Amino acid sequence: MGWGDLGAFGEPSKETPNLDQMAAEGMLFLDFYTANPLCSPSRAALLTGRLPVRNGFYTTNGHARNAYTPQDIVGGIPDSELLLPELLKKAGYTNKIIGKWHLGHRPQFHPLKHGFDEWFGSPNCHFGPYDNRERPNIPLYRDWEMIGRYYEDFKIDLKTGEANLTQLYLQEALDFISKQQASQQPFFLYWAIDATHAPVYASKQFLGTSQRGLYGDAVREIDDSIGKILKHLQQLGISENTFVFFTSDNGAALISAPKQGGSNGPFLCGKQTTFEGGMREPAVAWWPGHIPAGGVSHQLGNVMDLFSTSLSLAGLQPPSDRQIDGIDLLPVILQGKLIDRPIFYYRGNELMAVRAGLYKAHYWTWSNSWEEHSKGIDFCPGQSVSGVTTHTQEEHTYLPLLFHLGRDPGEKYPLSFASEEYQRAVEHISGLVQQHKASLVPGQPQLNVCDQAVMNWSPPGCEKLGKCLKPPESDPKKCSWPH
Amino acid sequence: MGWGDLGAFGEPSKETPNLDQMAAEGMLFLDFYTANPLCSPSRAALLTGRLPVRNGFYTTNGHARNAYTPQDIVGGIPDSELLLPELLKKAGYTNKIIGKWHLGHRPQFHPLKHGFDEWFGSPNCHFGPYDNRERPNIPLYRDWEMIGRYYEDFKIDLKTGEANLTQLYLQEALDFISKQQASQQPFFLYWAIDATHAPVYASKQFLGTSQRGLYGDAVREIDDSIGKILKHLQQLGISENTFVFFTSDNGAALISAPKQGGSNGPFLCGKQTTFEGGMREPAVAWWPGHIPAGGVSHQLGNVMDLFSTSLSLAGLQPPSDRQIDGIDLLPVILQGKLIDRPIFYYRGNELMAVRAGLYKAHYWTWSNSWEEHSKGIDFCPGQSVSGVTTHTQEEHTYLPLLFHLGRDPGEKYPLSFASEEYQRAVEHISGLVQQHKASLVPGQPQLNVCDQAVMNWSPPGCEKLGKCLKPPESDPKKCSWPH
Repeated sequence: MGWGDLGAFGEPSKETPNLDQMAAEGMLFLDFYTANPLCSPSRAALLTGRLPVRNGFYTTNGHARNAYTPQDIVGGIPDSELLLPELLKKAGYTNKIIGKWHLGHRPQFHPLKHGFDEWFGSPNCHFGPYDNRERPNIPLYRDWEMIGRYYEDFKIDLKTGEANLTQLYLQEALDFISKQQASQQPFFLYWAIDATHAPVYASKQFLGTSQRGLYGDAVREIDDSIGKILKHLQQLGISENTFVFFTSDNGAALISAPKQGGSNGPFLCGKQTTFEGGMREPAVAWWPGHIPAGGVSHQLGNVMDLFSTSLSLAGLQPPSDRQIDGIDLLPVILQGKLIDRPIFYYRGNELMAVRAGLYKAHYWTWSNSWEEHSKGIDFCPGQSVSGVTTHTQEEHTYLPLLFHLGRDPGEKYPLSFASEEYQRAVEHISGLVQQHKASLVPGQPQLNVCDQAVMNWSPPGCEKLGKCLKPPESDPKKCSWPH
Repeated sequence: MGWGDLGAFGEPSKETPNLDQMAAEGMLFLDFYTANPLCSPSRAALLTGRLPVRNGFYTTNGHARNAYTPQDIVGGIPDSELLLPELLKKAGYTNKIIGKWHLGHRPQFHPLKHGFDEWFGSPNCHFGPYDNRERPNIPLYRDWEMIGRYYEDFKIDLKTGEANLTQLYLQEALDFISKQQASQQPFFLYWAIDATHAPVYASKQFLGTSQRGLYGDAVREIDDSIGKILKHLQQLGISENTFVFFTSDNGAALISAPKQGGSNGPFLCGKQTTFEGGMREPAVAWWPGHIPAGGVSHQLGNVMDLFSTSLSLAGLQPPSDRQIDGIDLLPVILQGKLIDRPIFYYRGNELMAVRAGLYKAHYWTWSNSWEEHSKGIDFCPGQSVSGVTTHTQEEHTYLPLLFHLGRDPGEKYPLSFASEEYQRAVEHISGLVQQHKASLVPGQPQLNVCDQAVMNWSPPGCEKLGKCLKPPESDPKKCSWPH
């Protein structure tokens, strides 16, 4: 989902009454970011509180390449990383993930080995359908074992876009919350729905209900579900004891627009890029009785802050043996404070840009290659800013492109290199970059090696269902990451 | 101001708390349009309830050219047009215009000759400063006579952007409202401020207060003033008896961005164009006790509707001897109805596009000429949609470009000509166009002739101030309208 996909963020159809209401009752974050313009690394960052370049969710196969966890990826979340649910366990929390995990699908990466107590969902994206002899359909798990596969047991009609998965995920969430409330146990629920990821889907009751087409149907179903979850918390009497945060893991995938892609509002480009459209996200915090209603914050926030903030809520300290990039947002949320901190925009192994205050400096610019672009792969459809949305990797290390995001949220007008404003801002940001790079210890890159033998041929539990497939010979290769 | 300039419409700095509050207490219109992508024709349409092509506010000097009322324009609002204040007078209303008139500055076009009882403001835009021997500075009037000139008596500091005009306009508004309340007389106040028009200005107390630069300072001052006007109505106890509507006369002038231009949100291009960015406007209706708080409407609305709606509120009928393009929005505002009606997008004498429901058909596309564009005049900075934002006038009469504004608000993905959806929608819109054109009686074009002798050399009252200037010889010419 993109920054511009909610009514509260200016989506012209204004079809998200529940999320808009959540914002009206809580706090809207206008300057909130994901840690990466792609899904897997963002999710790894959210759960570890650390940049992908630290937790290993990046590739060094090419310079500044986006990478994720497709079926044939060999890597995943390293055991050395401490995930939020692992830490919350120590404070007695029960942790559940519903939906897409995306931190590796091989046995050692299983979410229940990394702090989660329960799981209903899939390890990878719901791509497909595939020919089972070439590529197995992605499995869905309940806890340790698979319970079926997409397209075979959990239908997604690629023609109509019909699938009832969001309803299943909603019911799982409501049930889990009820169970926890009944047993008086604190809980962490990571509700990682994926209906707005191509192939976009919605339940029958939502199909055709949006002005925006299928993508809007999916957004409406998510919005409706969130309304039901919040209402459930209220009806159970635990809303004043439950912190809820809504956000997204990357900007809207404009490459899938208009049928399957959303909106990044007034921002430049989308998913895959380090322009604002790729990484600025809709974000809403909700906690009745604690967060003053109708709050609006310009705090520079990041999904990694949810790690630190959640620990703080649970009365825990973040680990002290490693660099944590997230910050505790509670002073922002509860007392309206503003914390000075930069935002780092990475693409793979390269620090592409840095935001400090209202200034954003690009050290590298790239949308995608001419070769890809000429095939119609376009991360910035209808947008073209000379010298900015470049189709070759352009280095600006010694003379960064600088934008003032207040006057120019769309990153269209680089400041003059000769201006005093430029020099002051770049000097400040360069200092932050130096500091950042000096202390950076990159993790072992997890997204370099692919092997078709590791695909979801025979997930645990497949034998009970007669769903085991025979893997081919192992043939490890460098994964290909074109952009 | 553009659609994307208010927090309620997704401006990322969210600096319009008063307008956002006005929307929260009233009704937000998401699909509201101006009658023309330029100021004068839109204002003429607002006050007559008629398209510029009917009321004469267009040019035939070139095909599809935007035109307005600069100082040397010979034409203006014809006596044959019936203006809203003329009609409201019959119901006992006192009518005041504060700010920019823009419907002609020669004596016969004076607003007090067209139904207004009071005036504080200027006949033209606050351009300048000019050399008095070449072009006189624009005068400000109080009622029948000028009381000074911009830059000479009413300062605008072009370096700092400081000017206290919005404060003067605010005080005039508050005083007028107080006077009307005291005398128990109904009133129509046309508060036509112009601080967001280049050269953009703000009062000292607002300078530097916005994240968005000078343009944002101006928006903040307007927002603050509107808050004060609404509060004044409430304090006088007449808010439940006063209908207030906020909107703009064209999209944000992206050509003035980023320093002096605003935001059209996710829409294509800006002022001067018939893309959504040029003509879709922020719009809010407010009438406590009558309009349900927090309303949102997808009614296709137009500034011309304010003519018909205002008459309806005053218990008057629109004139029956002429075509009125505005519709009465009260059923929409008070009962949540949706009225089926098209939106016509004109540029000068040409019907460029038509919207019906969520479909918009372009019969002509043009941003501006290559010649102008190569000089850096760009109405779509950073945006370029192949075959859509064309730099030659492209005719699509026989095969209109069709967009679905729900799925594609940014007008980036024309529907396939071969699709059933295309054929159904175009057939419907073509019928509307035929009907529209069959009954169209164009007015005498008012914006064809320019003459430097008619400029504001010696406005009424100049002699009392010693501000009369000697006009040059009359030399009428075709006005030059490059785009």
